[in-house]
Amino acid sequence: MRVAALAGGVGGAKLAHGLAQRLPPTDLTIIVNSADDFEHLGLRISPDLDTVCYTLAGMANPRTGWGRANETWNTMSALEQLGAPGWFRLGDKDIATHLRRTLLLNQGERLSSVVKEFCSAWGIHHSVLPMTDERVATIVETDEGELAFQEYFVHRQCLPRVKGFRLEGIDSALPAPQVIDAINGAEFIILCPSNPWVSIAPILAVEGIRAALARRKVVAVSPIIGGRALRGPAAKMYAELGIEPSAVAVAGHYRDLCAGFVLDVSDANLEQAVSDMGMQTLVTRTIMRSSADRGKLAAGVLGFLQDKLT
Amino acid sequence: MRVAALAGGVGGAKLAHGLAQRLPPTDLTIIVNSADDFEHLGLRISPDLDTVCYTLAGMANPRTGWGRANETWNTMSALEQLGAPGWFRLGDKDIATHLRRTLLLNQGERLSSVVKEFCSAWGIHHSVLPMTDERVATIVETDEGELAFQEYFVHRQCLPRVKGFRLEGIDSALPAPQVIDAINGAEFIILCPSNPWVSIAPILAVEGIRAALARRKVVAVSPIIGGRALRGPAAKMYAELGIEPSAVAVAGHYRDLCAGFVLDVSDANLEQAVSDMGMQTLVTRTIMRSSADRGKLAAGVLGFLQDKLT
Repeated sequence: MRVAALAGGVGGAKLAHGLAQRLPPTDLTIIVNSADDFEHLGLRISPDLDTVCYTLAGMANPRTGWGRANETWNTMSALEQLGAPGWFRLGDKDIATHLRRTLLLNQGERLSSVVKEFCSAWGIHHSVLPMTDERVATIVETDEGELAFQEYFVHRQCLPRVKGFRLEGIDSALPAPQVIDAINGAEFIILCPSNPWVSIAPILAVEGIRAALARRKVVAVSPIIGGRALRGPAAKMYAELGIEPSAVAVAGHYRDLCAGFVLDVSDANLEQAVSDMGMQTLVTRTIMRSSADRGKLAAGVLGFLQDKLT
Repeated sequence: MRVAALAGGVGGAKLAHGLAQRLPPTDLTIIVNSADDFEHLGLRISPDLDTVCYTLAGMANPRTGWGRANETWNTMSALEQLGAPGWFRLGDKDIATHLRRTLLLNQGERLSSVVKEFCSAWGIHHSVLPMTDERVATIVETDEGELAFQEYFVHRQCLPRVKGFRLEGIDSALPAPQVIDAINGAEFIILCPSNPWVSIAPILAVEGIRAALARRKVVAVSPIIGGRALRGPAAKMYAELGIEPSAVAVAGHYRDLCAGFVLDVSDANLEQAVSDMGMQTLVTRTIMRSSADRGKLAAGVLGFLQDKLT
């Protein structure tokens, strides 16, 4: 049962980890958003790729949802003493990731090959691919003007009202090597519970990816539960864009792409509405508090695919 | 009593600190070798400038002679896990210095202006100037071929036999702003007890510096005591270049430049030989174990200048 999963940050990383618990490395490829990558303090930073890799390697900080566990902050403190901005917190071990990536990219290596080296060093056996090796940057159009994604997300804590999104560089971005092959070779595609606007949409916007997905059986897991996102601004974005935030809104978002949709038990009352859009549905516990929860949700989704989409 | 001091690493930094204890900021400029600067792990590293600044700020690691006190090593360990070479040890706080410098230099700032910003952030009130803002690199010619300085010094631990030195980029290197003014404005120049071959020689080789020094009263403090260098390869270099390492050899090295020479008490028997070269001599304790020792040596040298060279 070969699967390709599309993922952004924390929620996506957790389900990706669950899938990695249930599928052998040959049968799972995780395709990760790289449109929130940015350059900061002279470092090339790939937040979603790092969250996915740190989570798969068991190195993620469970408290913050970003960065590594058991961190120290000595470089950051010394940087601030030298006048560097401190709003994007980088731990000492995390900085090693960015320093090494910056060096390798500056030497001409592709992002996908850097990720491969990191996975190998961190003992990650499943394939993790950035959506593209080119630089793409999510720009958030807000009532305060355009903001680079991390500026909006971290520095401004998602406070400005969202009016839309723009993906800088998307027109010349090609899928990273093996992305299209992984999709074509998969029986099923899983859209992890990541932000539809800023995590999944950029992946879908890379040339050829949506077309490849259209030929496969795709299931999405709702990142909106009870009208709220567990983490991050997805619900706020729906509301500000004039759409009532709910699992139904997400299902509507993906209706052209998905044959199946997974809702949380707390949204069981919405199952009919999703079903009416022509999608198979699974209602299950989608909140992943523990590592075991991740494996359980993955197993549930895989069983659903097998039972309802074959 | 205005002084300009030329310095390289540890010994030079210690005397510079002693001078800073005895002279107000208006009366002391420290001109530092930057020919051992190099790029490593994607970072622009200035070992002598950092040693001087860390020492002046009271942040130097007293045990190692490089890097900062109370360091942690988490970035370095994580870098090594990712395949980065580990022979040049960078502490977490120290990395902040290099990261910030790399960013500012890449943004087009001059090295001298970066050093000025760092001094201000670290509470250093005396002027610290790199010899030049241009990139100059000491290449050590050895029996194993040419080695970049840090490769020879740190990676190979000074083991290859030295045949000579080459200063890459020296022909197009201009003195950093204020270097020539500081020399011209000083009554006295002090060559700190730094390696004559790889710390002081590069400073002297920058266009215009030797000529400016020739018009001033210059005193050197011997870095060779009892035929040995307290730290580093100076004595080994003299021997490999066919010169018996001693304070006399150092005095011979500087005889065209210096009107005064300072020897350690343990080399009192060499005073006559130095004096015979036509230099005023001071025999005093030159080993600086404590911060107070630094101030004492500085006071001794300043008194000697006042008494014998005016």
